[in-house]
Amino acid sequence: MAHEKYQDLIETLHECMTECNHCYTACFQEEDVKMMADCIQLDRECADICAYFEQALSRDTPFVSELASVCAKICEACGNECKKHEHDHCQRCAEACFKCAEACKTVA
Amino acid sequence: MAHEKYQDLIETLHECMTECNHCYTACFQEEDVKMMADCIQLDRECADICAYFEQALSRDTPFVSELASVCAKICEACGNECKKHEHDHCQRCAEACFKCAEACKTVA
Amino acid sequence: MAHEKYQDLIETLHECMTECNHCYTACFQEEDVKMMADCIQLDRECADICAYFEQALSRDTPFVSELASVCAKICEACGNECKKHEHDHCQRCAEACFKCAEACKTVA
Amino acid sequence: MAHEKYQDLIETLHECMTECNHCYTACFQEEDVKMMADCIQLDRECADICAYFEQALSRDTPFVSELASVCAKICEACGNECKKHEHDHCQRCAEACFKCAEACKTVA
Repeated sequence: MAHEKYQDLIETLHECMTECNHCYTACFQEEDVKMMADCIQLDRECADICAYFEQALSRDTPFVSELASVCAKICEACGNECKKHEHDHCQRCAEACFKCAEACKTVA
Repeated sequence: MAHEKYQDLIETLHECMTECNHCYTACFQEEDVKMMADCIQLDRECADICAYFEQALSRDTPFVSELASVCAKICEACGNECKKHEHDHCQRCAEACFKCAEACKTVA
Repeated sequence: MAHEKYQDLIETLHECMTECNHCYTACFQEEDVKMMADCIQLDRECADICAYFEQALSRDTPFVSELASVCAKICEACGNECKKHEHDHCQRCAEACFKCAEACKTVA
Repeated sequence: MAHEKYQDLIETLHECMTECNHCYTACFQEEDVKMMADCIQLDRECADICAYFEQALSRDTPFVSELASVCAKICEACGNECKKHEHDHCQRCAEACFKCAEACKTVA
């Protein structure tokens, strides 16, 4: 079944979702929150689409390639913003986002 | 702001989400539930993506066209399945899905 | 069916979700974003639970009172934070949150 | 941070979400889908609340006990329905639901 075929992708999406949400929360603890505004908002966008796609895969959605395509795009945008910031949580998040974007592209 | 620009689309997505969920629930009351299996599953897919896109628009997501494109595709698939069935809830749902698909395409 | 019985509540939840997301986005445009950190995070919490409960009601969830209870609590917390801030978007959001909390309590 | 404290719970919720969605999909393949109607609908309820709570924990939600309480209740209801059916997917799902309900109760 599809959810077995996509087991690795489900885990990659899950990791990206958690890293994005960790980064989201940690950004509010930084000195200059205004500077993190784009990062915070993209973290939410990315966490939400990863959580959505993860669930969709686990119920064998027929729309794998369409969702993978939009998810890859959002992961890349979030990764590009995160990598601008030197905070550990941003760098870890960027890494998770780029890994997830690549994984999504292979099924898009 | 974007969420004002997209006020009509947000309402159309909201209506489609509720019709899909009504159809979903009503399908389980039908005599032959097995015959409604595809309809039930597409109702869930469509309700979920409409609910997702509705929220994304209301927070001014930067990914309007990408999400609109995948939402249009899922709405069309759900509408095409629903229109095969003569039940009132299926016909109403098909109508809401096709209306929503058109609205999504104008911003995709 | 339940989704007809709860039509008004579904609309109230929908309005609260959109106001929370508008407030969320608008907070990032304010001069002092750090001062809005709690407001932003509670806006997301509240938008998400309202969106969740709205969908659950539209599919006739058997867990109306449990979800209404947690939703009321989150709406109140968000409203209490928002009302501290003089920005129009915060005041409008607080109003929507308190209205939604009351509506949830009547079915909790 | 909370998301580290709750790492085990996040994984338990994730497993329960995927088992519920697997059971959901598999139920539609059974001979008598009508008999699985309650199971299918509770699978969706349970998958959705587990996915929701999982995300909320990963962003350090202040509403852990309230969400844990409602999640425990929904997991138990889904587990009780699933355990009535002899299909492997139902039995595995029941097990995941009861495990998750217990884990939720410890933080409720």
